[in-house]
Amino acid sequence: MHIEKYQAYQPVNLPDRTWPSKIIDHAPTWCSVDLRDGNQALIDPMDSARKHRMFKTLVEMGFKEIEVGFPSASDTDFNFVREIIEGGLIPDDVTIQVLTQAREHLIERTIESLMGAKSVIVHLYNSTSELQRRVVFQQDREGVKQIAVEGAKMVKDRLARLEDAGTKVRLQYSPESFTGTELDYALEVCEAVMDVWQPTPENPVIINLPSTVEMSTPNIYADQIEWMHRHFTRRDAIILSVHPHNDRGTGVAATELAVMAGADRVEGTLFGNGERTGNVDIVTLGLNLFTQGVDPELDFSNINELMETAEYCNQLPIHPRHPYAGELVHTAFSGSHQDAINKGMQAIRKSNDPHWEVPYLPIDPQDIGRDYEAIIRVNSQSGKGGVAYLLETDYKIKLPKAAQADFSQVVQKITDATGKEINSETIWSTFQDEYIAQKDAPYELVSFSSKPIEGSNEREHITAIVDHIGKKHTIEADGNGPISAFVNGLRTEFGLNFRLKDYTEHTRSVGSRAEAAAYIELTVPDEKGRSVFGVGIDTSITMAPIRAVMSAVNRI
Amino acid sequence: MHIEKYQAYQPVNLPDRTWPSKIIDHAPTWCSVDLRDGNQALIDPMDSARKHRMFKTLVEMGFKEIEVGFPSASDTDFNFVREIIEGGLIPDDVTIQVLTQAREHLIERTIESLMGAKSVIVHLYNSTSELQRRVVFQQDREGVKQIAVEGAKMVKDRLARLEDAGTKVRLQYSPESFTGTELDYALEVCEAVMDVWQPTPENPVIINLPSTVEMSTPNIYADQIEWMHRHFTRRDAIILSVHPHNDRGTGVAATELAVMAGADRVEGTLFGNGERTGNVDIVTLGLNLFTQGVDPELDFSNINELMETAEYCNQLPIHPRHPYAGELVHTAFSGSHQDAINKGMQAIRKSNDPHWEVPYLPIDPQDIGRDYEAIIRVNSQSGKGGVAYLLETDYKIKLPKAAQADFSQVVQKITDATGKEINSETIWSTFQDEYIAQKDAPYELVSFSSKPIEGSNEREHITAIVDHIGKKHTIEADGNGPISAFVNGLRTEFGLNFRLKDYTEHTRSVGSRAEAAAYIELTVPDEKGRSVFGVGIDTSITMAPIRAVMSAVNRI
Repeated sequence: MHIEKYQAYQPVNLPDRTWPSKIIDHAPTWCSVDLRDGNQALIDPMDSARKHRMFKTLVEMGFKEIEVGFPSASDTDFNFVREIIEGGLIPDDVTIQVLTQAREHLIERTIESLMGAKSVIVHLYNSTSELQRRVVFQQDREGVKQIAVEGAKMVKDRLARLEDAGTKVRLQYSPESFTGTELDYALEVCEAVMDVWQPTPENPVIINLPSTVEMSTPNIYADQIEWMHRHFTRRDAIILSVHPHNDRGTGVAATELAVMAGADRVEGTLFGNGERTGNVDIVTLGLNLFTQGVDPELDFSNINELMETAEYCNQLPIHPRHPYAGELVHTAFSGSHQDAINKGMQAIRKSNDPHWEVPYLPIDPQDIGRDYEAIIRVNSQSGKGGVAYLLETDYKIKLPKAAQADFSQVVQKITDATGKEINSETIWSTFQDEYIAQKDAPYELVSFSSKPIEGSNEREHITAIVDHIGKKHTIEADGNGPISAFVNGLRTEFGLNFRLKDYTEHTRSVGSRAEAAAYIELTVPDEKGRSVFGVGIDTSITMAPIRAVMSAVNRI
Repeated sequence: MHIEKYQAYQPVNLPDRTWPSKIIDHAPTWCSVDLRDGNQALIDPMDSARKHRMFKTLVEMGFKEIEVGFPSASDTDFNFVREIIEGGLIPDDVTIQVLTQAREHLIERTIESLMGAKSVIVHLYNSTSELQRRVVFQQDREGVKQIAVEGAKMVKDRLARLEDAGTKVRLQYSPESFTGTELDYALEVCEAVMDVWQPTPENPVIINLPSTVEMSTPNIYADQIEWMHRHFTRRDAIILSVHPHNDRGTGVAATELAVMAGADRVEGTLFGNGERTGNVDIVTLGLNLFTQGVDPELDFSNINELMETAEYCNQLPIHPRHPYAGELVHTAFSGSHQDAINKGMQAIRKSNDPHWEVPYLPIDPQDIGRDYEAIIRVNSQSGKGGVAYLLETDYKIKLPKAAQADFSQVVQKITDATGKEINSETIWSTFQDEYIAQKDAPYELVSFSSKPIEGSNEREHITAIVDHIGKKHTIEADGNGPISAFVNGLRTEFGLNFRLKDYTEHTRSVGSRAEAAAYIELTVPDEKGRSVFGVGIDTSITMAPIRAVMSAVNRI
């Protein structure tokens, strides 16, 4: 591979950086750029219906700043800005933002698009990187700074048109390609723009420092932000904004470290749509705050709806492993994980502690509108924990531990043979075939009745008819209770050699039916004490264990 | 949202951390866990064919350590380990690794699976987190440490079986759920395991510190790694390994910062497959090194093949915005980006500098086996730069700058109206309709010839037949060259008022044809000097501009 074509990014000399010891304890100001940067990166840009749906979703989530387009770049963008202004679709507490290059006719058309809005951010940018100065603009540092300064003046000269019409205007400047720009020069350009705009603490400007292309490990971006944060001459008149991209797969990290380094505001998109590898993902950023107990100040409680909006508007899928959102991210297939999740969920149900703590699940899926259904899925990599969890969750079957191992072997044979996932319904039908229906089993219970033996203490007499390979046998037997009596009768009638080892029973409510489920463990002494399990389900709590004995005997 | 259910992660008190000033200047040791952790996270685990294809690909890429399974967990895993050992499929310089829990019968079966291998890593783990000690194992710190120590002893006691059979064995221990484990306790457990294993600098052990669940900003994981790195009593006898997951979308960053903090080795997967949000993505990590001029020591030169393998084996897609790999990550739709890329590509072609530097493209797509075709795609968000780039790249049409603006308006009308992307073929057919074929145009050139006027200096006489709305006109005219003469003749014959403003021509080689393309700009004085463009293509360099004049006249 042609390693010689590439050079290491220059780090920032900032040995006294403070960000690595900082903690994020409140949400930054969020600005969605879905309708601008996100939209500019789509194979098919959003049509009007898609733009309206995205805008509505962003507003409902709680975004207070939304970049709605690049109105001078296309009629589609211009018209959408007019539609939301003229249609009164922008809530009073929401500010729309529009992007423009530092060129007169574009600024002119941008201002035109905003007439009549209540509150706007005019976002001016020009590219300042060394590479773009050289190959795109063919200008020196001074020349490119003048593009910014002239643009800033043109914007300033036109503000009165908006302000006289009652629009509240905030100004924003981005030295685009900031991560390719020398820090001292980026500072110089921002300061020159502010010399024109004259921000004050009461009327600050937004200075937005984009990693237009992510070019380094995220700590270096944080160093750059802290360096700028410390060097601005009017820091108190600046809302310091970041706009990270994800070329190195570290956009979320770069943003978090940048916020620790002094950024007040973050521009990003839902699920990280945007040019190339995308803009930083505000859903992940927000839920990363949420799971630390910090209010994200955005509503993610119905993440499925957000996903549907994003997939509809962007016509791009959300990956099954996308943090918090993907189809598989709240799911465990591995046996040990399933076992731990199962125990963790039980512990949380028993405890009075309001805190969420379940192994392998950093967030309660219900907090973002997901259910528990998908938490555990079973395939050949799963163990007894997963099967037990699904039987209990979906079918109210609480298998005793030893029986879990017994049944999981039945399931493992299927998953090893097919190599596929096995779903909850198939596990349940396998369970029924194995323990309940038992097609072609040698023994079948035809009838059963029991009554206390008078004068004795708890001893019972039972009468049962059992079909054995087509022939009906009537059994009469006594014992310490009906189970024991039935076991005694079976042993005698059929000459079977087993003994009852364990018995448990619980009620099982599925829908409107109230049933009991009983579990029997027999040991067969002539085969090194092998255990044989049986399960019985019946509306009668007496009959359930009798059926369980029959089930076990059939499996000897 | 239920913020009260969550608590902030405890940071590490490490004010004298050194990692933020470190630079990664060489690749860590890579270990692929695609066939184990990746496989355990699939809806349908890999079958034998898929496992073999993945293993082969990993070997060919240059992985020297590959975790091939969890042989005691399923027959599928056990059998695969036997197949690659018995089939002689493991190159001499590749070490296979297998995972086992700290339980006797599992360790026993694990050792059995490895018999006959040349070089193996036996990877022992148990979960050490506070939460799992409490809810899963119901053991105190000492109890869980004993699970590790007993497991370490069981492994040690069985090593002779492998070593006597000629197998080189390295031992690895993971305190699973490390990020949920108190640092001092994680250290205590690792030290206790090493007390059993007695590693030396000549025969080190691997201590692997997984972020089994990613629980904090990545700087805290780096602090944890640096803390451990500084506190091990036998650091020189340890290969310090990390195994990050991506629950907060910062797995790549956490890994990079952890390597800066002292990690020697990274476990991860291709494109980040793995439980929930996935393991860390080794492709992104490797190419992040590559684009800094650091040899990744893995071969990514055919990334499409790696993607095909991953998608086939995992039966999961790679997202269109996945760093370096996704379908859209080397593509620009926005006009200003396209313009800059266009200029950057031209500059790089002209320069003798071997370094890659093109705005918005952090890597040369050809270095990973991608072509330039997809770099620029055109829709309503694009400007003239993109259209010009596609015409030049795909059709060898080098439109003069003013003509670019003219034609981009034609394209913009289409993209604004359809709201869709427009591909290179459609741009070309639109271009032909507009300038070349000109269906239903009023003027059509039937024939043309020219000859020098004898005795004059460069003056020409032309004879042309032009069809005007069904009627043929014969034109005879003189001028300074054939273009000028033809213009004069047209003005006179048809009473047209225009003048020739600009003319350029270049050769155009498409396939085996050698053609010329000519561009004519006319001005129409009675309409405020409006410019009208025409294009002519012909195998004759004389005829191309004549056709271009005709094309322009038709567009007045």
